[in-house]
This record gives sequence, C-alpha cells and structure tokens, in this order.
Amino acid sequence: MTNESLRFGLIGAGFIGQSHGLAINAVNRVFGPRPLRAVATVLADLDERRARAQAERLGFERWTVDWREALEAVDAVIIAVPSFMHMEIAVAAATAGKHILCEKPVGLSSHQATRIAAAAAAAEITSAVGFTYLRAPMIRHAKTLLDRGDLGRPIHFRGRHAEDYLADADAPFSWRLDAKLAGRCGALGDLGWHIIAIARYLCGPISSLSGLTGTFHRTRPEAEGVQPRREVENEDWAGALLQFGTGAVGTIEVSRIAHGRKMDIAFELVCENGTLALAGERLNELQLYIDSDPVGESGFRTIHVNSAHPDYGAFVPAPAHGLGFNDLKTIELREFIVAVAAGRNVDPDLEQACRIARVCEAIIDSAEGGTTITAPEQAPGPAAPVTDREAVGR
Amino acid sequence: MTNESLRFGLIGAGFIGQSHGLAINAVNRVFGPRPLRAVATVLADLDERRARAQAERLGFERWTVDWREALEAVDAVIIAVPSFMHMEIAVAAATAGKHILCEKPVGLSSHQATRIAAAAAAAEITSAVGFTYLRAPMIRHAKTLLDRGDLGRPIHFRGRHAEDYLADADAPFSWRLDAKLAGRCGALGDLGWHIIAIARYLCGPISSLSGLTGTFHRTRPEAEGVQPRREVENEDWAGALLQFGTGAVGTIEVSRIAHGRKMDIAFELVCENGTLALAGERLNELQLYIDSDPVGESGFRTIHVNSAHPDYGAFVPAPAHGLGFNDLKTIELREFIVAVAAGRNVDPDLEQACRIARVCEAIIDSAEGGTTITAPEQAPGPAAPVTDREAVGR
Amino acid sequence: MTNESLRFGLIGAGFIGQSHGLAINAVNRVFGPRPLRAVATVLADLDERRARAQAERLGFERWTVDWREALEAVDAVIIAVPSFMHMEIAVAAATAGKHILCEKPVGLSSHQATRIAAAAAAAEITSAVGFTYLRAPMIRHAKTLLDRGDLGRPIHFRGRHAEDYLADADAPFSWRLDAKLAGRCGALGDLGWHIIAIARYLCGPISSLSGLTGTFHRTRPEAEGVQPRREVENEDWAGALLQFGTGAVGTIEVSRIAHGRKMDIAFELVCENGTLALAGERLNELQLYIDSDPVGESGFRTIHVNSAHPDYGAFVPAPAHGLGFNDLKTIELREFIVAVAAGRNVDPDLEQACRIARVCEAIIDSAEGGTTITAPEQAPGPAAPVTDREAVGR
Amino acid sequence: MTNESLRFGLIGAGFIGQSHGLAINAVNRVFGPRPLRAVATVLADLDERRARAQAERLGFERWTVDWREALEAVDAVIIAVPSFMHMEIAVAAATAGKHILCEKPVGLSSHQATRIAAAAAAAEITSAVGFTYLRAPMIRHAKTLLDRGDLGRPIHFRGRHAEDYLADADAPFSWRLDAKLAGRCGALGDLGWHIIAIARYLCGPISSLSGLTGTFHRTRPEAEGVQPRREVENEDWAGALLQFGTGAVGTIEVSRIAHGRKMDIAFELVCENGTLALAGERLNELQLYIDSDPVGESGFRTIHVNSAHPDYGAFVPAPAHGLGFNDLKTIELREFIVAVAAGRNVDPDLEQACRIARVCEAIIDSAEGGTTITAPEQAPGPAAPVTDREAVGR
Repeated sequence: MTNESLRFGLIGAGFIGQSHGLAINAVNRVFGPRPLRAVATVLADLDERRARAQAERLGFERWTVDWREALEAVDAVIIAVPSFMHMEIAVAAATAGKHILCEKPVGLSSHQATRIAAAAAAAEITSAVGFTYLRAPMIRHAKTLLDRGDLGRPIHFRGRHAEDYLADADAPFSWRLDAKLAGRCGALGDLGWHIIAIARYLCGPISSLSGLTGTFHRTRPEAEGVQPRREVENEDWAGALLQFGTGAVGTIEVSRIAHGRKMDIAFELVCENGTLALAGERLNELQLYIDSDPVGESGFRTIHVNSAHPDYGAFVPAPAHGLGFNDLKTIELREFIVAVAAGRNVDPDLEQACRIARVCEAIIDSAEGGTTITAPEQAPGPAAPVTDREAVGR
Repeated sequence: MTNESLRFGLIGAGFIGQSHGLAINAVNRVFGPRPLRAVATVLADLDERRARAQAERLGFERWTVDWREALEAVDAVIIAVPSFMHMEIAVAAATAGKHILCEKPVGLSSHQATRIAAAAAAAEITSAVGFTYLRAPMIRHAKTLLDRGDLGRPIHFRGRHAEDYLADADAPFSWRLDAKLAGRCGALGDLGWHIIAIARYLCGPISSLSGLTGTFHRTRPEAEGVQPRREVENEDWAGALLQFGTGAVGTIEVSRIAHGRKMDIAFELVCENGTLALAGERLNELQLYIDSDPVGESGFRTIHVNSAHPDYGAFVPAPAHGLGFNDLKTIELREFIVAVAAGRNVDPDLEQACRIARVCEAIIDSAEGGTTITAPEQAPGPAAPVTDREAVGR
Repeated sequence: MTNESLRFGLIGAGFIGQSHGLAINAVNRVFGPRPLRAVATVLADLDERRARAQAERLGFERWTVDWREALEAVDAVIIAVPSFMHMEIAVAAATAGKHILCEKPVGLSSHQATRIAAAAAAAEITSAVGFTYLRAPMIRHAKTLLDRGDLGRPIHFRGRHAEDYLADADAPFSWRLDAKLAGRCGALGDLGWHIIAIARYLCGPISSLSGLTGTFHRTRPEAEGVQPRREVENEDWAGALLQFGTGAVGTIEVSRIAHGRKMDIAFELVCENGTLALAGERLNELQLYIDSDPVGESGFRTIHVNSAHPDYGAFVPAPAHGLGFNDLKTIELREFIVAVAAGRNVDPDLEQACRIARVCEAIIDSAEGGTTITAPEQAPGPAAPVTDREAVGR
Repeated sequence: MTNESLRFGLIGAGFIGQSHGLAINAVNRVFGPRPLRAVATVLADLDERRARAQAERLGFERWTVDWREALEAVDAVIIAVPSFMHMEIAVAAATAGKHILCEKPVGLSSHQATRIAAAAAAAEITSAVGFTYLRAPMIRHAKTLLDRGDLGRPIHFRGRHAEDYLADADAPFSWRLDAKLAGRCGALGDLGWHIIAIARYLCGPISSLSGLTGTFHRTRPEAEGVQPRREVENEDWAGALLQFGTGAVGTIEVSRIAHGRKMDIAFELVCENGTLALAGERLNELQLYIDSDPVGESGFRTIHVNSAHPDYGAFVPAPAHGLGFNDLKTIELREFIVAVAAGRNVDPDLEQACRIARVCEAIIDSAEGGTTITAPEQAPGPAAPVTDREAVGR
C-alpha cells in the first residue's frame, strides 16, 4: 500500500465489474479520500477490446488481458469474473498478500469457497464479498432497529429473490446454466446468495433446512434461435424452509424465471413487537409496523430513505431523493476500504460466504434426498481436495 | 325442498355465522330468487341470548339452542360452529338428507372430515365448504385466465395467509389453541385451509410436500390479564414446500402472529407466459404480467374488479366500486344454491376438503419427522375409527 | 309511519336504485331493525318490465310505473332517477309529508335544488342526500381524527374524482351529456358533488373559488356506431382552486374521461401536524402521517379498516375484510333511518346540497368569466322562477 | 475549450453543488469521456473552509472564494448558489464566453432571468438549466410515448411537487423565505419550477392560467428556538389551473409544508388513448394505461426502469436496479456536454427558463388579482431595468 492510497486491480469488466469500476471512482468523492484514497490502477479482462475500452472509460491507469499481471501492481483486487475463475485468482491474490473483494457466488462450490477463505485467512489479508444489498441504507436501518431492540426478537422471516432474465423458455443457454462454469447452483448461486445473506444478517445463522428445486425450462438453444438445444444443468427455482439458531423460522424462494419480477429481492420479518418489510424494486423504502400504535391508527409505515439512515446523507442530504444500484456498490467499496485500513474483514467475509455456499448446496441436497438437513453451515469435515470437475475452470 | 324454496338452518351465530345469515338474506336480492329462493328458517346457537338476538336481526323465522331441532324443519344446514362440533352435526344432517354448507376447517381432523364426506356421499346430498376466497371475482378471474391458456402452464406458486390476531404474546387462550376443540392444526386449520384451497384451485392436487411449524408464544393467560398461563397446543406458524401433480412447485406460509397483517391472504403464480398476483387486503385487485407486452412498456397491470369478472356485475355494474367480505359470502351461498338445484356438489366439496385436511396434517407430520411426504392428499388406508380425543367435541 | 316500521318507496330501479333496494333489505340485518324497521313497500320505474323484475328481485311488496302512486303508501321515498325528474318528485313527496333520500346531483340546477330544499324545510320532513362516500368508515375516521385535534387545523386539500366511463371518444351520447336532462354540469354534477362534499366535510364551507372546465370529446354518436354525431352539452373535465372559510386552501379536479381511473375519488389533506390521504379504489384504507414519529421511522401508515372505525364492526368483526359499495349504501340508509327516528336531517342535508350545487355552477361561471367567485355557496338572491329549460324534465 | 476537454468551474458547494461536483467526476465514467472530457478545474464557495474541503473531496484542481477568479480558467460554469447571486455571475460568465449550466430558479425574478438569457444569447454560449427531473429515464420515456403517438394527444394533466422541509411551524427562517434573497416566489421558485417544467415538457407552452397561493406559517424564529420571530415573505403553497396552447388543461400544486411528502413530484397525464402517471418518490417507475387492453385485463402497468428507457443502460444493464438522484445529475451534465459539443442549448434552455419564471409570477399575480392571466409565458414588454431590490444580491 503506497502512501495512503489503495491501488485497485479490477478483474472482469462486464456488468458487475463496471459497477465496481464506477465505485472506485465515486468512493473518493462521495466519502472523501479517507481513510485511503482508492486508485484505479489496472483493469484486466480476457477480451482485449473490452479491457481497453472499459479501462479508458472507467479511468484505469492501464489494462491487461492477464489477471496475473494485474495482481502485481496493486494493493487490492476486485474479482468480478464468472465463479469458475474465482478460486485460482483469489488464491493467487491472497498468496501475493493482496486484499480481496470477491463477487458472489464465491467459487464454483463450497469446497472452492472454503479453499479461498483458507488462503485469505492464512495470508491475513482483508476480504469482502459482493453482498451489495446488505449495503442498502434501508436494510441496514432494519438491522439497526433489530439491534436497538424496539421490535423484540425475530420470529419468522419470508424472503425471496425473483427475476425474469431466463423466463423466456427460448432464451439462449449461457455460462450460468453450465455446471462446469457456474457450479451446481443455478438461481441459488446467482440470487440465493443475496437473500440468504439478508436472512442471516437479520436472523443469524441457519441451524437446519429443507429444500425443493426445479428446472422448468430444461433445454435451451445454444444461441438465439439456434438448434439443437442444450440441457440446462442447474435449477431455475428453489425454495427452502429454514430454522435459525435463535429459534426463528423462515421460508425463502429464488427464481430466475419469474415473469415480471425484475429485481425482486424482498423480505418480511415478523418480530415480537412489530414487523419489517422491504422490496428490492423499491429499495429506498422500508415498511415498518409497530404494535404499540393505537389500533385505529396502526398500519405499516412507508419510510422513505433519509439522512437518519446509514450512509444516505453522504450522497444527498435531502430525503427520498433515492440511491441507485451503483451507489450501493460505492458503499460496498467504502466498507472494504475502511476494513483494509482497520486490518479486519468486512462482515460477511469469506468465512461467512462459505457458510452461505453450504446453505445453497444443502438446499439442493435436501431437495434430492427429501430430508431435513441440520447444521447446513458447517463444513462437512476436512477440506476436500479439488476435484476434476472443480478444476475445469482453470 | 318445498316449492322452489330452500329452507336454511344456520347453526352457529358468531362472526362467520352472522355473515352466512346476512348472505341468506342478500342472495335472493343480488341474484334474484332463482333457481331457488333462500329462506332463513331457523337459527341455532348454544347461547340462548345470542340465538334470539341474531335470529331477530338476521330475519330467521325462529331460533333454538338445539341444533338437532334446527335440522328438522329445513332443506339445508350451514354449519358455522367450532370444528369439534362439525362431525356430529354434519353426519346427522347428511343422514337426515339435508344439504350441507360447512365452514372450514371441516371437523377436528382429516379422519373426521373423511367420515363427514362419507356420510354426505352416502346420503347423496349436496355439499359445499366455506372456502370464501375462492368466490372472490379476481381469484376466479385468475382461474379463467389460466383455463383460457393465455399464460401457459403454472410453474411456481407462492402463497401465504398471515394475520395478527394472536400476535400479542399476552392475548388470552381461546378454543382455537386447544387441540381438543380446534384439532392438531392451529394456523394451518384456520388460515392454511384457505391458502391451500387457492393453491389447489390454481395449480391442482399436491403430490408431495415438506413442512415446518413453530409455536412461538407457547403459553397464554386463560383470560385477559389472568394467571396462570396455559400451554398452547397447536402451531402459530407453518411453512411448506409443495410439489403439484402437474410438475409445478410452490411455497406456502401461514401465521396468526404476523404483526400488522390483518387479512393477508396472498399469492403469486408464475406461469410459462406471465404471472398473476393478488393480495387479500386488496381483494378487488388482480396483478397481471403478460410477457408479450413490449419491454419498454411491460409491467404488472393492476386490474380493478369490473363486470368482466365473475359475479361482480350482479352487485354493482360500475367498475372498481368493490365487494366486501359479506358479498363473498353471498356468492358462496349462491354457488351452493345453484349446486343444490343441479343435484351436484360445489367444487371444492367435502371430498376435496378431506384432501386439504390431509395436506395440513402432512405439513405437521413432515415438520415432526423431517422428511418429505408423498401423496399427502391420499387417505392413509381404511377410515380410522373415531378416537376418544376426536369424540370430545360432542 | 306505521308502528316502528319505515315504509320505503324506491323511485328508479337502475344501477343506483338497485343499490338502494339492496340496502333496504340489508339494513335491518346488519344493524338490526332499530330504531325503525325498513320495509320495501313499493318500487316505481317508468320501464314496466324493469319495475316488475327489480321489485321481485329486491323484495318489494309491489311495483308501479307511476311514481305518484308510489308516494301514497309509504313513509319515505328514495329518489334514484335522473336529475331532471328530481324537482317534481321531491316537491310532491315533501308536500305529502314523506321523508326524502335523494340521489345526487339534486335537481337540474341549484335553483331546482333550492326549491326542493325549501319544500322539504316547509314540510319539516327528514332529508338526506346520496353522498355515499361520506359513509365510508375510513373517510369518517379521517373526520374523527380531525375533530379529535390530533392533526391540528387543515391547511391544504387536494381532491379528485376521476373515472373513465366516457374516455372513449366514440362512446355514445347519453342523458348525462344533455343539458336538458342532466343540467349544465357534466363531470361536476356526476363526480364533483362527491369530491366537493368530501372537501366540505373535512375542511368546512368554501368561501371563494376559481374554475376551469373543458369538453374534449365535443360530439358523440347518438348510439353505438351510429351517425350523425350529437354535440355534448356539458364538461368532461373541471378543475378548481378553493378557499375555505377557515383559511385552508385546496384544489379539486373531476374527469369522466380519465383512461384507467375507474372509481378514483381521492384526497390528500395536509394539516398542521400531519397528513391524511385516501383513494377510492382502495376505500378500505386510510393513509396517515403523524409528524411526531421519529424521523428515521416516520412515514405514511396504511391503515386497514377495522372495528375501531365507524360502522365497520357491524358488518364484520375481523379487520381488513373490507366493505363494498353496497355496504356503504347500507350505512347511508341506516343514517337516514336514524335521522327520521330522531326527527332531524342527515348531514349534509338538502340545504347543504344546494350549497354544493352552487359551488359546481360557480366553477363553471368562473371558468367562463375568468374571475374568482366569492361566497359561491350563497344563494344569489330571491329564488328564481323555474325556467322552461328546467321544466323540460317533467 | 482545450483539446477535447471541457474545464468546469463549480460555483457553490452546498447540497446541489455537491451533486454537480459528483457528476463532473461520474460523467466521464458512465458515458465515457466523449464528446468532451469533463474536467473539475475550480470550485468556488464563499465559505473558505467548505470550498477547500469540497474541492478536495470532489477532486477539483483548485478552489477559491471568489467566483470571478473561477471564471477565468474554465470553459463552462455550473451556478449552484442561491438565486439572488445568479444574475451577476451568469451575466459575467456569458460575457466572458463561458457556457452556463445554471440551477433553478434562475435569478430572483423573471426580469433577472430575462437579462441572463439575453446575455447568454448575445454571447452565443451554450446554456442549460438544472431541471434535474426532466433527465429521469421514466419521464423521458413518457415523452417518447407521447411523441410516438401511441397515446394520442394530451388532454388533462395533474401535477404536484410537495415536500415537507418547512412543515414544522417552528422550523427556523432561512434565505428561501426572504424575498430579497429568494425572490417573490417561495414554493413556486423552489418546487414549482420543476413541476411546471414537466408540465411544459409533456404538454407544451401554457396559454393562460389562474392561481391561488397561501402562506400558512406566517412567522418563523430567526434560528432554532430563538425569539423574536420573523415574517415569512413568500408562499408556502400555490395551486394553479392551466390551459396549454394545444387545448389541453391541467392543475398543478406545490407545497413546502406537506407533512410526510419528502420528494413528491408527481403527475398524471390523461391522453386520448391512455394515461401516464409517475411519482417522484418512486422515480424509477412509470405507470401506463393503454385503452386497447381488453376490459378484463386492463389496468395501469407499473413499468420498472430498464435499458429500453433513455440513458438507464449506461448505468446498469440489468433492469430495475434503479438510479439515484446523483445519477440524474450525471445525465443532466451529459446533456450539457453534448450540447456544448454540438454548439446548441439544452432544452429547456434559459429562454424557456424565463417563460417558467413568468408562469410562476403569473400564478402569484393571478392569486393577488383574482383573474385569469393570458399568455403568461410572454415577456411583459421591454426588459425592465434592474431594481434596487433585485440588485441586492450583488
């Protein structure tokens, strides 16, 4: 780390990489260049043309097609490539002593996530995971209300993350549907990580679960309008019944084929003395019911984001002007920078990510076996060796 | 049946009995006295004072405290008493050749429901069950859209019925919490019947399930502010993962302790070509997403009830003027009267009710056993004899 | 009035007459037959076939095509015919000592309304006007909150009543568009009466106003698809700026051509210490903002109707089960019956209706003259003689 | 303009200046540094401490307390200071040949705005005005739908901009309430400019209007909790009835005292074949009703922002992830840069701003005079000399 700066290497310049690139730029402005100034040092992407174009656009000092090269000149890496590439990059980064902000799902499997987490722990670097929605002011305010005790203990949680990017039965096959490139988890890997992270953030660790999954569009054309069709290798939809260590319970559901739902990450949490609810398509609002309001005047309050809610005021002082998705990425990066400066991880860190990965796999295991799975967050024993299948991504 | 009239005996004059009594009166007016004129012949309630007052108010020809007496002078009975009394009354009614409209949950258990259904079938009378929400114009319109094929096959369903009538941890014990009087099912018996009926109405029979339940307020005062507290004997909350015979999947949840949710029966059904959603606190609205709308102009449509939707026009010709709960009871009674005249049952009938009762019990069995239960709608073998516990209600 | 009964004559058996007929039947059941039992004595409609059919359906003892005949045998009349017939019927009814529940708009003009009110006052009968929405529990609860003083004084009001029954430019001409039959006011007569009544109910009398009107579909076919087209004689849309006697201000708007708005009577009332809002398509909900909630937890509360709100509990004891339009008509009739028994008028009565009629006309006068009109509720001087045009309806 | 760069001077580093500063930084990243790269050259603020801190945070090359100094080294200025300072700065900037992006309301009065516009026209520089909401993708999509002709001509418009920043009667006096510093317009100047700009954007120029205004909290403490109180010099609330040149009509309302409304800029526009509606607290959604949907399936569609809507895709490719207020400022700056490169103004430009200023003043004039004002957008004659009062800001 050179002189109060934090030099970033961004690996992957697609949708989510671009958001990270914008955040590197924005974070110094929104929050001020403290405790460390973020520097956009190098951008790596396998696609040379995209690497060059995005580096210019996002203001990186230079670009490369070789992520290994990117590691050398930086203090921290943001890993924003498909999951099958995570393990190799992350382990190399940790070994080289680089701090890591890794997109979710981390690795192809919980085994890979575990290896990444172990490498990060051994290297004593700072890690963070791209749980973007946990940075939303209204979700953090929900947590504040819980921690403050106003609502009593959580009792039951209902969560979902539904989108429709694959609702069209003839939408073409993509890497996300290929178990070698995306892993065994489909909607769970892409969307489940987010809603499980929120469930755990508000209710704590999961102590047992049962799951159900379904793949409804079983084959897809290799490309738009092309024959033959290829078999889809992971689930379109999953549901689970959850028990939390605290005694709370819940249901969650994820879908990538839910017509009309565009970014529908949503939850409702009933507590002893009130209820919280939020929907991702209206992420700047929190619904709150407090049981002490008089019966004639009680109802869910629609709270619009304002400067009483975490981090919002740094963007706009006036209420209800709204944050966008890229603003959440800016908050995410800010949390990472603060953690680097403090020599700690961002919560949830890679170790927590392993737990979430195991929960996703346990949902699939339960669906396949028809039984409840207890202690789904625990590693199944000594870390398994990397299997051939997992190695494919290299 | 005397001369184009249908003489009704109403057994039970509490909240739901009163709605039925209003419906007997309204049905002739809203739909005209055809095919049969409903006649409010006799009202029975164990509480003499309530029997007399409600009979006068609701326009019954006479009242009694003895339900057996009520059976004699009528063509049909509406059974609106707590579940533990259903079996004795319903079997007697069927045996006497009286048509039966029975409130849900039917009987104390699926065993009792099965006996009732058997008696009804043997007597060849018309039966109907108080699945009030299935009569809502917008839920029926949802079914019409499915049957018409516009949306393709159902894929995944998410349903809930959440209320907060027991959300206060110190709300007193009531018969609903006593297994002897309400049965083994708590929220499932009261609320689960409704949402499971909707799930089956839209998606068909349930082929397997797993469940989870919880009782969070484990003791309650016998009466407001009184000590000691009594143990609650059935669940406050239940969740389930469902598989339908068609291959569709779903999640459902019921809660009687969900602060702020007053009549929150709600569902979202994703189909091949669109999505339907509805929430009971806004029962005069249906949300519809159709995938053929252009991407820039697509979104859920909020459809307000109008005369294109089943039965609404009989109440008000102008759109969006809204029906209330008692109007749904009027439609329910209308369907019953039409079925009586046609010599058939209302769908879902008592046989279907048995299946729903078994689904509720299977959710509890699955929660207790930690395994998926297949064919939950099927009777477990030859009808079991009435047990002592079940007999208590007499 | 015979022996604790109140014998009703219903004049007009169309949409709104039918709702009144249902209410005569329902009111004894919902509220009990006290202080007076409503009796459906006679129904009059010019269309013999409709008269007979509706009388049978709605349970009237007899029917007639001659409203004069209907007057004879009753204690009270409900006038549910087009406005051009109001004056003759109402004056005759009052002269005969019959109580009057008259639909809005009362008469063809404020002059006619004034004559009706004078006749009613002279006869000392009880009068009421069909301001149905003023009977909605959540609008009455809004008034309760204001009267209780929690919110401080009203400051600014925004109201509208928008529907789309004439939004189609080719929808055929109807009596509502004919000044001889419907009066000078179009949307103001049909919809403006409702929203002005709400404005006055919550904010008090109007002390000055300016108005703007527009007729956008200036001709319409005489019947579906028929040529030639006929000129529309009153406004499709009107807006007004209002000053209330209390110093509060407001805007109102009415439209009968607002695509997509089905029953969109809505208001927002900002007070010194909070805000109330309600929308007619969700008439069972009230929005309430209270400024004393903490800034991080403040927001509009969505209050669902429950038994803490006026009259709801008489229909259903459970919260949020909803009332429909016909239930509001039942409450309206109940208020009328109570007023008859007490020997007083329902507020707003015919005298208030005259004021509302004058406000509607003042909006048109202001629109035509381009000036603010002060004291719009006051009669312009000695009652004007009935003009030929007004007499046409006879 | 030096070599494909556009050097910016930002004058004013408060809330809105900060958003502009963030935008200078973000615009190159989101849209790429083309056609011109925005450079944060110099920031000016009278408060030295704020100038220094914001310059560092927002990445300006240097800072100053003297706006004249800021003019020298730049190609364009962003004027983000209170209105009383606009005229002097803008005229100097234009005279010096600097392009101008000026916040609204432009100048203390329409006279000042006219002088600024004249100076800009004479200097042939590019001008733009901070009509931020006109840059929102869903408002622009509304305009696209209108221009495409799908909905037919606009018929009636209802708009409002309500906030509650002065709803507390004891909120202290501020420069916005002082006619010398903020001008004769209160809520109209701050909020009216936005909603009038939207009305004109969608419906075209305003041909006549009548207005009503009110100041309800007539005195305020000079500072929090301090005595004595000072008289408020402009309106808390205004309403207007509008006629557009096209024949369309409308109502608008502004309030700075509307408890619970945080950023409630909203409109509903009824057209010949459908209706558009939008609310600022949910700025990433557009409501659309199309009259050709079948009656049973018609309803307002809630359209979530996606890449089919202008500029959204540059921020996030995935739908419904949302833009925040600062993103709108980035789009605003982008439009300005494109206009500079093309040698034209952004629409609406300073000449349009003069018209909006005149509309605001005409609303007040109408309220004072009680008459309709025709041609409110036209200048009243030869440009009036700067008065003493207007000169105060210098």
